[in-house]
Order: sequence, then C-alpha cells, then structure tokens
Amino acid sequence: MKKLGIVDMGFLLAEGRETPMHVGGINLFTLPPGADEQEFLHGLAASLRSDEELQPPFGQRLKMSKLGLAGPVYWEEDTKLDLDYHIRHSALPKPGRYRELFALASRLHGTLLDRNRPLWEMHLIEGLQNRQFAIYSKFHHAAVDGARSMHLTQSMFSPDPNARNLGSAFSLESQNRYRLKLDQLRAENYSEQELRNVSEAIKEAFQTSTQVFSSLKSFVGGWMGKGGALALPWRHVPQSSINTPIDGSRRFVAQSWSFERVRAVGKALDGTFNDAVLAMCAGGLRLYMQKHSELPEKSLKAMVPVSLRQAGDIDSSNAVGAISADLATDISDPLARFAKIQASMIAGKALFSALKPKEAALMLQLLQMPGLLLMPLGLISRFPPFSTVISNVPGPRQTMYWDGARLDGIYPASIVTEGLALNITLVSYDGNVDFGITACRRSMPQVQRLIDYMESSLCELEQAVGIVSPKQRPSRARSVKKTKATKKKRRVSAKT
Amino acid sequence: MKKLGIVDMGFLLAEGRETPMHVGGINLFTLPPGADEQEFLHGLAASLRSDEELQPPFGQRLKMSKLGLAGPVYWEEDTKLDLDYHIRHSALPKPGRYRELFALASRLHGTLLDRNRPLWEMHLIEGLQNRQFAIYSKFHHAAVDGARSMHLTQSMFSPDPNARNLGSAFSLESQNRYRLKLDQLRAENYSEQELRNVSEAIKEAFQTSTQVFSSLKSFVGGWMGKGGALALPWRHVPQSSINTPIDGSRRFVAQSWSFERVRAVGKALDGTFNDAVLAMCAGGLRLYMQKHSELPEKSLKAMVPVSLRQAGDIDSSNAVGAISADLATDISDPLARFAKIQASMIAGKALFSALKPKEAALMLQLLQMPGLLLMPLGLISRFPPFSTVISNVPGPRQTMYWDGARLDGIYPASIVTEGLALNITLVSYDGNVDFGITACRRSMPQVQRLIDYMESSLCELEQAVGIVSPKQRPSRARSVKKTKATKKKRRVSAKT
Repeated sequence: MKKLGIVDMGFLLAEGRETPMHVGGINLFTLPPGADEQEFLHGLAASLRSDEELQPPFGQRLKMSKLGLAGPVYWEEDTKLDLDYHIRHSALPKPGRYRELFALASRLHGTLLDRNRPLWEMHLIEGLQNRQFAIYSKFHHAAVDGARSMHLTQSMFSPDPNARNLGSAFSLESQNRYRLKLDQLRAENYSEQELRNVSEAIKEAFQTSTQVFSSLKSFVGGWMGKGGALALPWRHVPQSSINTPIDGSRRFVAQSWSFERVRAVGKALDGTFNDAVLAMCAGGLRLYMQKHSELPEKSLKAMVPVSLRQAGDIDSSNAVGAISADLATDISDPLARFAKIQASMIAGKALFSALKPKEAALMLQLLQMPGLLLMPLGLISRFPPFSTVISNVPGPRQTMYWDGARLDGIYPASIVTEGLALNITLVSYDGNVDFGITACRRSMPQVQRLIDYMESSLCELEQAVGIVSPKQRPSRARSVKKTKATKKKRRVSAKT
Repeated sequence: MKKLGIVDMGFLLAEGRETPMHVGGINLFTLPPGADEQEFLHGLAASLRSDEELQPPFGQRLKMSKLGLAGPVYWEEDTKLDLDYHIRHSALPKPGRYRELFALASRLHGTLLDRNRPLWEMHLIEGLQNRQFAIYSKFHHAAVDGARSMHLTQSMFSPDPNARNLGSAFSLESQNRYRLKLDQLRAENYSEQELRNVSEAIKEAFQTSTQVFSSLKSFVGGWMGKGGALALPWRHVPQSSINTPIDGSRRFVAQSWSFERVRAVGKALDGTFNDAVLAMCAGGLRLYMQKHSELPEKSLKAMVPVSLRQAGDIDSSNAVGAISADLATDISDPLARFAKIQASMIAGKALFSALKPKEAALMLQLLQMPGLLLMPLGLISRFPPFSTVISNVPGPRQTMYWDGARLDGIYPASIVTEGLALNITLVSYDGNVDFGITACRRSMPQVQRLIDYMESSLCELEQAVGIVSPKQRPSRARSVKKTKATKKKRRVSAKT
C-alpha cells in the first residue's frame, strides 16, 4: 500500500462541500466517418469498463486509520470496484449546442467525488451537433494532477486515425505501453530543472518524524506571522469578486484560440507565448472588472503553476510549484501592461534559478501551500495570496484520434477555492490553445463574458503591435476561413 | 424569518456526504398529441423559471448563527435566487429506456443539495421512448416532506387535459389557488387523529428553554440505556445487508402494479391494502435474501411511517410518525406470513389509539428520532431500530395532466441512511400503485431484482387465496390487455 504524500494530503484536508478538490475537463471529438453514434459510444464505454488490471490509483481507494485525515492515509485496492459507477453515459438536451455541454459540465464539476471509491469519474456525452461527442472527466487532485491527466490523455489517443481497440487508458498495460513510447520518443517538453519531487522536499523540511498535520499547522502560523523570510511580497493583493467566499456550484466555459495568433503577439513584444497568454487574460479581466464596476486600484496577481515533474516521471501525482505574476490590471495601455507582466514573470523565474534545487522546492511550497491550508481555517478570503490562477498545461502537438474519432479540443476544468473563485487553465493542442475557465457560480455568475473580453484584449494587443487581426482583414480572411472551415467550425470558437 | 423546527433540524444534523437527506422522485409523462418535445419542454422550463413570488421555502435559504447547526437556524429570502440553477434540463442517452432513466435518477439522487441555496432542484428529462418525458425532483427533507411534495404534485397538475399555462407550482399564487381548491373539496384522505404537530409536541416535552442540541443528545442517551419505558420491542432486529454502513451513491428503481390487484389480496384475507403491500414487500425481501444466501433467522422489521399532518395543513413540512411492522420473513407460508404482518400492524395502530394525543406524538418520536440521531454517532448499524422503511404516500386518484401532458406515474425516491440501506416508498395514483425503491449502491447492488421478487410474492399470495392472477389466464387476459394496452404500455411495468 502506497502512503499519500503531504501535498496530496493537503488536497484531502482542504476539501469541503463548497470546495471540491477535483480537476478534469471536457474533451471534444468528431465521430469517425460513417460511425453510428450510439454503437460507437457503447463500444468506447465497454472498452473503458473492461476488466483489465488498472494502474494505480484508478483501482484504489483511500484507507485511513481511526485518526482519519489526522493520521497516515494509504491507497488500497478497492475489492468491490464497480466500473459502471466510474464510466458513465450522459446525453445533452436538444439542440445540443456547446451551451448545453457547458451547463452539464458545470453541474458535474460542482459535485464531490465519493471518498469510499477510487477518486475519479469519466462521462461519455452524446447529443452534440455536427457529429461531435464529448467526454467530461473528473479526477481528485490527491490522485491525479493536471500533468498526469495530460499523460493519460496522450496514452488514451493515437495520432493514427486508423488505430482501433486501444483498450482502456486506465489499465496497467496502457500505462506500460505509454512509458515505453515515452522512453523512445523523449519528446516531452517538461521543465528540466533538477528539482526534487515537492512532497519529498517538504517531507524532509518538516522532518517525517513530526506529525504531519501539526507541522502544517505551525507552518501556516509562521506564514500568517508578520515579517521575516515568510512575509511574502504578494501578501496584499486587492479585494475583488474573485476573492470572496464561495459556494459549491460551478460555472464552466471554454474557448479555443489559434496558437499562432497568441504567439505572434508574444514574439512581436520579445516575450514568450506564456507572457501573451497572461496579457490576454489580464486585459480580459480588466474589462470584466470595469464592466462590473469593481476594477481595484491595485493590480490583480495570478498564480502561475510550474510543473516540477521530471521528464519520464508519469506516475507521481502532484509535482507543481508556482510563480506569482503581476497582471498589471491597473494599467490601461496594453503595451505597458504587457511589459509589466513580462517583467514579473522574468523576476519570478530568476528567483527559482538562483535557488538550489531543494531550496526552490521549499520556496514553491511557501508560494503554494498557504492557499490550501488557509482554506480550512477560513482565512483566505481576507488574506488572498493571489487573485486568480492561470495555468498552462502542455498537450499533444499533433491531431489525435480515439478509436478513429478525431480529438477536436481539450478544455481543462480545475479547482476554485475560498478566496480564489476563478481558475483559467489552458492546453496547447494541435495548433490551438484551448482555454477552460472554471468559476464559482455565485461569485462570478457572468464569467462566460470573460471569453469575449479576452478576445477583445487579444485584438487590442494585435492592434498595438501592428498585427492585422483576422477580424480586421475581411478580404483575406474569407479565403483563409474557407480552407480552415471544416476544422475550425468544430472547435469551440467565439461564434458559438 | 421562520425558525426551523426540531425535526427539520434533525435532518440537517444527520446529513453527511454518505447520507444525503433529500426526498423526491420521478414523475413520468406522455407529451400531448402533436406537441414537439423540445418546444414543449422549453415551455415548461420557462414557466417554472418565471419570476413570480415563490412560496416558502422554495425561495429561501438557511440562515445560521456563528454556532452553525448547534444554534438556532432560520429560513431567509435568498436575494440572489438563481432559478436556472434549480430548474435544470437533462437528456437520456439512447436508446432512452427506463433503464437509462433510472441510471440518471440514481446519480442525481446521490449528490448533496447546496446548503447555500434554497434546498431543492427539479430536472426536466428528455430522450425517453414513446413520446414520454420525465421530471426528477429533489427536495431537502428539512424543507419538504413526502406529503408536502405530494401536495405540490397535486397543485402542479390538472385533471383536465385541456388546461394550459398552469404557471409555476412553486409560486405563492399556485399555493393559494390550491389551498382554496382544497377547502372546497375537502376530499383529502389524511388521518383525522387529533394529534399535534410533532415538532410542537417534542418541543414541549423537552422544554424550549433547554438548548435543543443537548436535549437531543440526552434523549439518545436515554434510548440507548437498557430497560425502562425506553427499551422498545424492536430493539433487536436481525443483521442483513440492509443494515450496514452505507456510502453516498444510490440505486433507484421503480415499478407500477394495479391497485385493484394488490387490494384484492388484502380483501381476500380480511386485511387492508397496506397489509397487502407489506406482505408483497415482505415476500420479495425474503426471496432477495434467500437468493443472496443471507436470510436471517429472525424476522425483518419495517418502519411504516404514518402521516400526522392534519387535513388542510399543507405547509408545515414534517409531520410523520411510525409504526414498527413485523415482516415475518422467517415464515415460508405466505398466508401465515400475511397473518403475522397484519397482527403487528393492528397492534401498532392500537398502541397509538390507546395513547392520549400528546403521549402518542411523543411515542412516535421514540420510534422515529433515534434512527436519525444514531446516524451521526455512527451507532445505527450496530443497533438497527428497523430493517427497512416501507412508506405509503397517497397520490391523486384521477388521471392528471401538466399543460396537457398526461402524468403516467409517480415514483418516489427517498432517503437511505447508515444501517437502513433500503427504502420502499409507494404512491397510489390513477388505478395503480407506483413503487420507488431507493438503495445504497454498494450495500444492495442488485436491488433491481427486488422488483421481480415482489411480483413473485404477489403471485404467490394470489395463488394462496385462489385469485387467478393476470399471468395465469391467458385467454381472458388478451382481451383485457387490448383495452388497457395503450394506457399500460407507458407505465413502468414488469416487462420493461
């Protein structure tokens, strides 16, 4: 039996009925030519439910002592595994637009996973227009983090549209097959920093002999204290509707943009793709706050998670650090805003590279853990460490297929917590960047508008750097659209 | 602001992620001739979402002091009421059989209601075969009990297939209209016992000056003590798979039987309709236990709730007492089993009639409350006060319509708790008796078989009393079937 690490424990400790701690999202597909929807989906469900041996932790459930979460927690085999429970089949009401899909995903994302069972669900969803279908998946963050879930996506699908009978992505065999392929390709793009696994580092830092829960408590006490090494710079971010107590229901919306279009803005300003993503979100948030008459004087800060997973490590579940990015929402000029965002990202990265690996890992904890731990203490909305989370998860670079069904988009759904009512996660896949936006339904009921404001923000940046955006060149756009139409119209785009 | 009574508080205190405390169920309809499903359902949703003033507590949410549930709790207006959240639209995957409907209802019934909002949801469900559609509704027991929900059903529908634009059943206006109609008709069939509202009686018994929570605790202490007036006879019911700890997921199945067919068995044995229902369930449970090799030597006991709601009282939410019925599952002869069940019901009713009203109300608490209160203490699976719950809720006698859509069946879904993993609730409606069976998915994964065993049990009783059951008379059955076919085939029946 494997013992849960301290970070995974944190996700269990922090979970409540208002703050489910699962990640997941929507994958969108087009049926193979000629395939019958019902027959095809039943085939997929059957292969996912096959009784192969599952890779950990998909066949395992939590085992606690009488101390509950105050004591050690292990993964144990679930001897009564009920795959019909985990693999589900749903349908959308007519007319089956993305709107109906997002309404369903919002609902599914707002309910807790059952802690008596393996901590995941996968829903096959039928009833979309244009021969599309979707899956919504849901993994507890204590079991699977964003990067692991992306490895799962990679292993589940094939770049070959004619590949069939790929088996269940949750099987041990599928994991082994994928590990082999990964060794051969070494094409992974994760950070090569020689950082240790976060949970290992923090375990050492707090000494494993000490009781985990009380260690964490004293750690939070230290963080809350004023001055010293623990008084971190982003301590005083402004209050907004994002930084409020939340309830348990969610709004999920999604949108794709062309990767090239976003990267071109970054390039034109000597910045990275990620800088451009942050600038696009920052401009969108500024507009949203303006329209709701609540733009704070001080700039919003975003937590930008950084993967610490070592290349080739596909099964340790949580290996994530964070940089605090200044979103410069107090600046109206888009170029000056971009420059300030870029500077804060460079400073954040420099901070990590100047530290020894072990120090860096610990530093990341100082940036990441308090949010999790302040939650159960109910303090985070008064001392918000960040305004929001903007997280970039690398996805497959080429078009992928699932038993011949083309994967059209990957839209991640993440966690929102007390004081962090908005999460923006994006996946770059097959020439697009797919955004999934998860929000508290009560704190940000109109979060779907953020999508439009992000498009406005991108246009504004393009205009400022002299790029003619697709919308401004109708004559060329027409021919471009024609060739891309068959592909584009099946993505979630601004027109839907 | 209305303060919650002690019984309603009990449902909040007892609720946990493994034991949601909501009731509800499936209502099945046939679209009006010529109506377009999508258009019709959108019309219904729109009228349910109209911004009329809502009757309490559908527009109200819980308001607690800093003491939480240990202090007084009130209903307050939800100023941010979001009816899109409460009125939902779902669809079934193809082929849209009752099987898919029950799978969806099982899932919806296994998730907690959001305590930050009014404690109810209603789901319009499309995608059924034969021009049927369904609603699944979900009400927290602290807000709405079974009888109140039946009043809601009555007020929602009309006996006139041509009646249209009935408005939202949740509106204050609809409640007032219904109250008037009730005054005129006085056709209600509730118990006329001059009993006081249960929560009033128990409040007096424990003195309002004492803190509610500690009173309940000492009450449980008394019940757990041995001997004296509190050592009640059903204390030692046998262990079975029904009396186990449960988890949070559910299985829901439903079935209709002809009211006449069940009543004929009761009549032939000088018993009531309810005696026949209990005998049918008892025989079914005996077969289920036998097939799973776990039939206990001692007989199973059923809690049979009795409504204490006074005629004309349609808004006090919980007014329920209980009789403990001996199911005689240790007896193989169906007639001897029936006789023992009947005797225990007569004894239970005699017990109530011999008590003064106030004593009866208190006695009912002794029968009902411990189950609720033992739950949070984790003791009920060791001291199960009953084996299961079999509850009969009176429904409308005539065929009802919702904006012209015929109501085909009313299948209630109820609560299962620690140690009571099975609940059987039935509604008599329009010549049928509609059973809804709710079970813990882990404890009773094959509960759908109980439906068949109940049919076997009914046939066995019919045979024993010399009634020729419909299955045994093919020659006459044919002609009977012909006339009833159009109606019957749309009910959930043994053939689906």
